[in-house]
Amino acid sequence: MFKNVKVIVVLLLLNSFGINAQHKIPNYLDDKKPINERVEDALWRLTTDEKIAMIHAQSKFSSPGVPRLGIPENWMTDGPHGIRTEVKWDEWDQAGWTNDSCIAFPALTALSATWNKELASLYGKSLGEEARFRNKNVLLGPGVNIYRSPLNGRNFEYMGEDPFLTSKMVVPYIKGVQSNGVAACVKHFALNNQETNRNSVNVIVDDRALYEIYLPAFKAAVQEGDTWAIMGSYNRYKGQHCCHNEFLLNDILRGEWGFKGVVISDWGGVHDTRQAIYNGLDMEFGSWTNGLSWGTSNAYDNYYLAKPYSEMIKKGEAGTKELDEKVRRILRLSFLTNMNKERPFGSFGTEEHAKAGLKIAEEGIVLLQNNNNILPINLSKTKKIAVIGENAIKMMTVGGGSSSLKARYEITPLEGLKKRIGNQAEIVFARGYVGDPTSNYNGVVAKVSLEDKRSVAELTAEALKVAKDADIVLFIGGLNKSDNQDAEGADRKDLGLPYNQDKLITEVVKVNKNIVFVNISGNATAMPWVKEVPGIVQGWFLGTEAGNALANVLVGDVNPSGKLSFTFPVKLSDNASHALGEFPGGDEVKYNESIFVGYRWADKQKAKPLFSFGHGLSYTTFAYGKVTADKKQLSVNEQITFSVKVKNTGNREGSEIVQLYISDLKSSLPRPIKELKGFEKISLKAGEEKTVAFTIDKTALSFFDDKKHEWVAEPGVFEAIVGASSTDIKSKVNFSLQ
Amino acid sequence: MFKNVKVIVVLLLLNSFGINAQHKIPNYLDDKKPINERVEDALWRLTTDEKIAMIHAQSKFSSPGVPRLGIPENWMTDGPHGIRTEVKWDEWDQAGWTNDSCIAFPALTALSATWNKELASLYGKSLGEEARFRNKNVLLGPGVNIYRSPLNGRNFEYMGEDPFLTSKMVVPYIKGVQSNGVAACVKHFALNNQETNRNSVNVIVDDRALYEIYLPAFKAAVQEGDTWAIMGSYNRYKGQHCCHNEFLLNDILRGEWGFKGVVISDWGGVHDTRQAIYNGLDMEFGSWTNGLSWGTSNAYDNYYLAKPYSEMIKKGEAGTKELDEKVRRILRLSFLTNMNKERPFGSFGTEEHAKAGLKIAEEGIVLLQNNNNILPINLSKTKKIAVIGENAIKMMTVGGGSSSLKARYEITPLEGLKKRIGNQAEIVFARGYVGDPTSNYNGVVAKVSLEDKRSVAELTAEALKVAKDADIVLFIGGLNKSDNQDAEGADRKDLGLPYNQDKLITEVVKVNKNIVFVNISGNATAMPWVKEVPGIVQGWFLGTEAGNALANVLVGDVNPSGKLSFTFPVKLSDNASHALGEFPGGDEVKYNESIFVGYRWADKQKAKPLFSFGHGLSYTTFAYGKVTADKKQLSVNEQITFSVKVKNTGNREGSEIVQLYISDLKSSLPRPIKELKGFEKISLKAGEEKTVAFTIDKTALSFFDDKKHEWVAEPGVFEAIVGASSTDIKSKVNFSLQ
Repeated sequence: MFKNVKVIVVLLLLNSFGINAQHKIPNYLDDKKPINERVEDALWRLTTDEKIAMIHAQSKFSSPGVPRLGIPENWMTDGPHGIRTEVKWDEWDQAGWTNDSCIAFPALTALSATWNKELASLYGKSLGEEARFRNKNVLLGPGVNIYRSPLNGRNFEYMGEDPFLTSKMVVPYIKGVQSNGVAACVKHFALNNQETNRNSVNVIVDDRALYEIYLPAFKAAVQEGDTWAIMGSYNRYKGQHCCHNEFLLNDILRGEWGFKGVVISDWGGVHDTRQAIYNGLDMEFGSWTNGLSWGTSNAYDNYYLAKPYSEMIKKGEAGTKELDEKVRRILRLSFLTNMNKERPFGSFGTEEHAKAGLKIAEEGIVLLQNNNNILPINLSKTKKIAVIGENAIKMMTVGGGSSSLKARYEITPLEGLKKRIGNQAEIVFARGYVGDPTSNYNGVVAKVSLEDKRSVAELTAEALKVAKDADIVLFIGGLNKSDNQDAEGADRKDLGLPYNQDKLITEVVKVNKNIVFVNISGNATAMPWVKEVPGIVQGWFLGTEAGNALANVLVGDVNPSGKLSFTFPVKLSDNASHALGEFPGGDEVKYNESIFVGYRWADKQKAKPLFSFGHGLSYTTFAYGKVTADKKQLSVNEQITFSVKVKNTGNREGSEIVQLYISDLKSSLPRPIKELKGFEKISLKAGEEKTVAFTIDKTALSFFDDKKHEWVAEPGVFEAIVGASSTDIKSKVNFSLQ
Repeated sequence: MFKNVKVIVVLLLLNSFGINAQHKIPNYLDDKKPINERVEDALWRLTTDEKIAMIHAQSKFSSPGVPRLGIPENWMTDGPHGIRTEVKWDEWDQAGWTNDSCIAFPALTALSATWNKELASLYGKSLGEEARFRNKNVLLGPGVNIYRSPLNGRNFEYMGEDPFLTSKMVVPYIKGVQSNGVAACVKHFALNNQETNRNSVNVIVDDRALYEIYLPAFKAAVQEGDTWAIMGSYNRYKGQHCCHNEFLLNDILRGEWGFKGVVISDWGGVHDTRQAIYNGLDMEFGSWTNGLSWGTSNAYDNYYLAKPYSEMIKKGEAGTKELDEKVRRILRLSFLTNMNKERPFGSFGTEEHAKAGLKIAEEGIVLLQNNNNILPINLSKTKKIAVIGENAIKMMTVGGGSSSLKARYEITPLEGLKKRIGNQAEIVFARGYVGDPTSNYNGVVAKVSLEDKRSVAELTAEALKVAKDADIVLFIGGLNKSDNQDAEGADRKDLGLPYNQDKLITEVVKVNKNIVFVNISGNATAMPWVKEVPGIVQGWFLGTEAGNALANVLVGDVNPSGKLSFTFPVKLSDNASHALGEFPGGDEVKYNESIFVGYRWADKQKAKPLFSFGHGLSYTTFAYGKVTADKKQLSVNEQITFSVKVKNTGNREGSEIVQLYISDLKSSLPRPIKELKGFEKISLKAGEEKTVAFTIDKTALSFFDDKKHEWVAEPGVFEAIVGASSTDIKSKVNFSLQ
């Protein structure tokens, strides 16, 4: 019975199931391998169902990875100004987490007004750190849509009217975000310049305006910023929705620019399966699907890129080439973000981030007018300060749409002033007017509840009373984040300030001429009382540290150095789109002004703005020397450098944004009078002088020839114009291109 | 004016904010540094508030990291059998996610019945992969509390009655989990052997039973498994709650065993701030706090280790030494888990994991009785199979308490049988009886809704009808996950089967003697009809693949190879705790049986069990040779090896679990008749023979001398006993320790 002994079992080996075995790592998990090799290795392992699952959402903000292969889910987060609070799986309501109170950074309009690329980098890096700590691998921002009309409700989320400035600011922002292993998702591509009819409006624009005005920031984001994702826009172009638009996505973004990243739909921006397959979209989010309302459990299966797509494949009506391409790009996204073992761990809600936001806010604030040097407030002579206006007490991080935030804290202007000045002067506050409740967008609970049942007469009387007794009046008004103000989903109805602020300001001026108006807004507003109000400050939406930043500037602890990134027209008809009656259009909107957007229109029409693009004052003064060129003429492959000396002629340190515009004196096609092609922000001590040099090449001289479909620099004479704003020209020098 | 030119600004450098700067990595982020150095570096950076935040929960299952420093949050997950569904932030309700349907693995009782360490490793590895993919860094399991009474409602989550078997199984489980960079959290430390009065009962146990019976699995988890976390239990010992128990945590766990990991409270297991500070607890979770109900927003601030602790520090009533120690251990946990860059990405809900679960289930099923070789079902002679019993159709992954799962799928026994046999024989089903609704524990929605309004008479009649006509009856009954069955929070009320199953079985036997009883349970049950029912199978709770595993065994595709990890007594009074009237006790429970738990009691009392510890049949047969020793006597530092030949004497391949027991023939202190000190599971082809060798040293001969407080191996004569179960002894050999 025991004769045929074969084996002596001494120990059971523990490794037959592999945990101790020396398995070879599959290529897709081997981060020593080139990314393309990893992508291909992962791709061939996937089933069609797994691929289909990856190209559309599974919840409000997430899409599946490949659980079988350890490829993580993708988690997106709004937005450009801070990390959105956690929402429920399939509802917009907040999930009630207590670990998601973020730092609210200044709105992008404020960032653009700094004209400071270092700060754009700091902004992106800080925001990316916040996203990373919250385990989000795609940040839905920044927004770089061009400011076409001051009525666009989302202008506050963008970076102004100039393609050059926006391009220069978006690149470091992206690099900052992505240094955390978090993808930036630049939005909204493209031509999303209004909220009215945003889901359907078909934009009619000529190729010159498209390439010269509306696309450059996206191109820079792709080619210089190496953005890993781009978000399609809601509107249509050439009749196709932009989230699946063959012209924008296939021809331009991927074809002309060579974009390798992921195209993500705006939430609910997909409308057609076939177009979504073939026209360059990679990931579908937020769709309203036929007959299935939000929250229906299988709504996601009915996404255009879900069952409808897989059914087409099964029936042979579609191949899998496009599917594979989409999945390749999504896999690449994972390898760059949540599968990048070397990415840092981020940080969240930190003092360091609050300080970054404060710095950006301080440099973004624009001193628009400072007659009689009413600012900074002379605290040695000021005993009583009247603060008037609802925006002195209103939280601005809540509302406005998808950029609404649950901020860790927000210092209101009144709080900031009290903290800074409170023990040196008496501060008395009067609300003056009562605005609308804050917009309740997508279920974001508006925390801003500032009920006040008093009549207009009572509010006015109180305001006049405090104004009359004060040494100085700070009127802190402007717009807010309510519907039809600076808010997603609708546009403003006119250029004026809401809630009869103009009337109140005029009455206040009658009792106290020593008044400063602080415009809390992300948009230009009319100021019919501009000559009666000596001090005007553009105060933006400044985030967590808003009130501290404003107080620091108003008392002069910080010398203002921001300049406008868009034109303040005197009246709506001074803006091109309105002058031509082409805003907001109906089913379609015609960009008949073509390339003449912003200061380009003002220059052409010789319409003096209320405040010009590039305008911004300082508590010190700067003197400019004469601009010189290092050559008289340049050949097509040469560079030319312009130099100008700038001196601080006042008695305190300050920063100046020196601007270089180029004017093509004669051209075969219409061109703007001048276009921004360089800027530098320099800091000068009192009495200090620096030379600022700008080096350009033919790209700064080129226009987009729509017949040839290429950028052309025509030989001839050009003018290099140095200015402190687009209308405050300091000197010019001619040169020629051979 | 332009004379003092100082600097030429050509480019703004991008790196002054650090994203391109070559900052030195702080030590705590440098994974080339030793972990202790990283811990100390992080520790000194922390504020007291940050430290306090880290030592208690912020939500149901998470605790904060340090957002400022990029130290991630800790996310815990139940539990031992699969990854719990996502719950709301501060409620037990499911959060409604759709990405969290897990693979349900067999209950740990089933795993222990495999006696297969490789499968324990596979289990841990697979479960750890699921946890890792779901971004959980602490898995709340495994449970290793000793099976003291068959009435304990949570026995199904543990690994049986024997400290040696449990120790051997827990170590590879832990290593498997932790190979994913996910901490195992071995629970419930200690003496948590019942659910009745679990939050208050004070366990009176002598040191011998404590060290010999109740602690060895924990000690192995710490010293051999290197578990990174341990969970305290709800009950008391020596009057102190075990989550902050100076004897268990300070003296034994950290003092005697040198545990370096984190002690986590059971949810709501903390009751005293001072004890929680000083008695070894590191992290407090799930507390019900004074006057604040669940869901109150600041309830977490009132945790014993939150404000009450920081207030004591502020008042000078407590120092920070203990706080620092806790935080050190939590930091270490992070470095080992969510800050370990090299940890794999995991995988979730995969076919591979389902197959692992299937394999474990198949090897865990125990063939208890097989008279007349009724099993495997002879499909060539079987035309009609009657399946009777609610457990044939009842989901068992839902309910039972914190181990309840949202399984990706669960194959019920009926489904498994139909799938395997359906096209070879007719399967007719009768429910036979209707049990209770599944326990709704902590808001886990019980999906199992199997309403049936028929009367007992109708159900019985139907059962008898289908039984009468069938070639074989499979009665699939047992317990379920309802309250007072196999479920957390309460104990069973008696040993019998619920819902009058005994009566139904007896009636069915009258119409068809060809019957197999499949006991779906995690506990022993009485079987008064044992002589009338030829086939009895212990079917456990087998998870996702339950029905497939059962079908595979019943038809013989898989040859059963599991053996019981605990004793089935004939009646409750055959169990020590009940024989002595010491279960469940009241305010206190006395473990008067001391070390005589399970088979140790049965041996001592000569009480023949219904089914013995270590018992389990096969479809083949095994013959054992005579055990031999490689020496007659050993000195205290020597090893001794016992060898026994085992041959498969049947006609099909099968696995046998060969067991080595040691008997101390004469001892200064009372000792069990014998104790398990070795086991090997070997696979043998028909006719094949292998030699199994067991090597032991003095540790296998030792007892815990409570007077000396040390393990003692007394010189003298011992017996090495080889058996196929604790009562099926094959041969013995004497040896002596010098």
